[in-house]
Amino acid sequence: MSKSRSNTLFTVRWRKNSLLLIDQTKLPTKLCYFSCNTYQDVAYAIRKMIVRGAPAIGVTAAFGLVLAAKESTAKNVTSLQKDIKRAYSVIRSTRPTAINLQWGLDRIIDKIQNLDNVSAVRHVILKEAMKMAKEDISINKSMGLKGEILFSDGDTVMTHCNAGSLATVAYGTALGVIRAANASGKNICVVATETRPVMQGSRLTAFELKHDKIDVRLIPDTAVGYTMSKGKIQHVIVGADRVLRSGHVFNKIGTYQLAVLAKRHKIPFYVAAPISTFDFNSNVDDIIVEERSKNEVTKIGNKAIAPKNVKVMNPAFDITPPTLITKIITEKGIIEPPYTKSIKKMIAY
Amino acid sequence: MSKSRSNTLFTVRWRKNSLLLIDQTKLPTKLCYFSCNTYQDVAYAIRKMIVRGAPAIGVTAAFGLVLAAKESTAKNVTSLQKDIKRAYSVIRSTRPTAINLQWGLDRIIDKIQNLDNVSAVRHVILKEAMKMAKEDISINKSMGLKGEILFSDGDTVMTHCNAGSLATVAYGTALGVIRAANASGKNICVVATETRPVMQGSRLTAFELKHDKIDVRLIPDTAVGYTMSKGKIQHVIVGADRVLRSGHVFNKIGTYQLAVLAKRHKIPFYVAAPISTFDFNSNVDDIIVEERSKNEVTKIGNKAIAPKNVKVMNPAFDITPPTLITKIITEKGIIEPPYTKSIKKMIAY
Repeated sequence: MSKSRSNTLFTVRWRKNSLLLIDQTKLPTKLCYFSCNTYQDVAYAIRKMIVRGAPAIGVTAAFGLVLAAKESTAKNVTSLQKDIKRAYSVIRSTRPTAINLQWGLDRIIDKIQNLDNVSAVRHVILKEAMKMAKEDISINKSMGLKGEILFSDGDTVMTHCNAGSLATVAYGTALGVIRAANASGKNICVVATETRPVMQGSRLTAFELKHDKIDVRLIPDTAVGYTMSKGKIQHVIVGADRVLRSGHVFNKIGTYQLAVLAKRHKIPFYVAAPISTFDFNSNVDDIIVEERSKNEVTKIGNKAIAPKNVKVMNPAFDITPPTLITKIITEKGIIEPPYTKSIKKMIAY
Repeated sequence: MSKSRSNTLFTVRWRKNSLLLIDQTKLPTKLCYFSCNTYQDVAYAIRKMIVRGAPAIGVTAAFGLVLAAKESTAKNVTSLQKDIKRAYSVIRSTRPTAINLQWGLDRIIDKIQNLDNVSAVRHVILKEAMKMAKEDISINKSMGLKGEILFSDGDTVMTHCNAGSLATVAYGTALGVIRAANASGKNICVVATETRPVMQGSRLTAFELKHDKIDVRLIPDTAVGYTMSKGKIQHVIVGADRVLRSGHVFNKIGTYQLAVLAKRHKIPFYVAAPISTFDFNSNVDDIIVEERSKNEVTKIGNKAIAPKNVKVMNPAFDITPPTLITKIITEKGIIEPPYTKSIKKMIAY
């Protein structure tokens, strides 16, 4: 499964003073790029899900501050910091649930606290954002190597949404583990759920696995239980938008029901989540679950698929309790229940 | 909630020597009719899901034999029976899982076994098909009255797919119970799952409930578990394509996972199924679960929503075991576990 580097999909890339994002709203029919030249472009891209996936959003947000610093005409550090803080607020407000958005922004802000000239600030922000992008890939590869031992040759693995190269800078979290297993010579087949309403499974996961020649089968979200009941699935692996210290996982809507069904069918359920996805401070009820536009459910492109003015509930995320999660894979290693203990221990290292 | 008769949706209607079907592939954007003038038209309409829903398919199939008898130029009963049997085979082969298709055809065939002239055969077939259409509505209303006592004023009820007037001649099975509850003065709110891939929930259930001014909210299939976990659902009610004497229910793909999730959240799970939906002879493994075209999953209209040539699994039905079913509502009354006993007792009456 080794691939030439030139063929790798880079979801987030800094080039010639602007940020290039694969426009994920255009996939799978067109592979094209959205260019961000201002921090407002970055906020727009995150809100409209041109870029999505917790790790990708974190790095994109960091580059949003790079652009804010470039745009600013401030002549002193105080004014520049003020301009950057404004950009921070705008970008922070785009999506509430994934913690990486805040993590990416805070990491940049931390780095520039004590700098005393504007060019140093600009330089350090860019350097830190570039470092984060690079780290994202190496963290994913490390998570892949740690996690791939869970899979055996010939296994079929179900995944939900897209926790792949398109959800990160490259390589992916959950799909990174699958890539690593394939790279180690195991033949892993993937069952991808469509993931309505935004269809990250059919549009993105199926696209990137086919791109990498990994065997993938698409199912409607309604076929999860039936497919498991037929004994076709050996493991389930998903990504995460936020992992609490209790082990509760916020992830794409539908994750929770995969976990319930996996438990019923005695199929191990794994979450692949870099440390940047962990929230060590919040409790379950503190987290806002984003409610997105009803148009995502009632229309495909311009085509109406539901009656006019129908009421819709469209929560973007759900909450999987720790009791349903067999293991969590991080770049530091695999952790197991009880998560209150194992997460505490992981942080201590 | 009482409505003038003229405003009732008739899914299947015999008029001026042809069969008029609401074309359900055009809903919710257009309410138009598909006219069947030959039995081949009927077979086409069932295969293409212009008409769908087990009870509607049963009655439509019966009218298919009316048309076959009309079309036939046979001058004697033996030839006519032969022409009708050919039509029987063609219509029977359209869809394998719903038992009502066979039930509707067999009921007609039984009636004409011992007739000795061609005009009597034609007359009896039409009379029986008309009787079945009329009975379908009265059975649904009777089921509604029997079932509605399960609901209380203010309840929110989740349903899957479309087991409404559009799945029957009129009134509906699962949605018939909701109609009856509303008619009795209870205010019932419905949560309808989209039901990918054919979207009977968003296109049909949302449409017909809005048409009848019953409060309905649409959710993606991925939001079933989360919506239940938020305590928003008091009951789940679905229809059935086939109920075995063991209590196993074959119904639209996704039903099984609703049942598993309902069990986890201690929400009662009901199946509304007329006796015509029961199969007293088969075992679970005897039944073929229809696998439908991958285009249902990879395209919406002409728009591709998945990469070209992606592999797809698209089973149209799943199997809910009796242990997950709280009650089954029939026109004869409500039955409870153990179903092997209660179904046997029900037939005996």
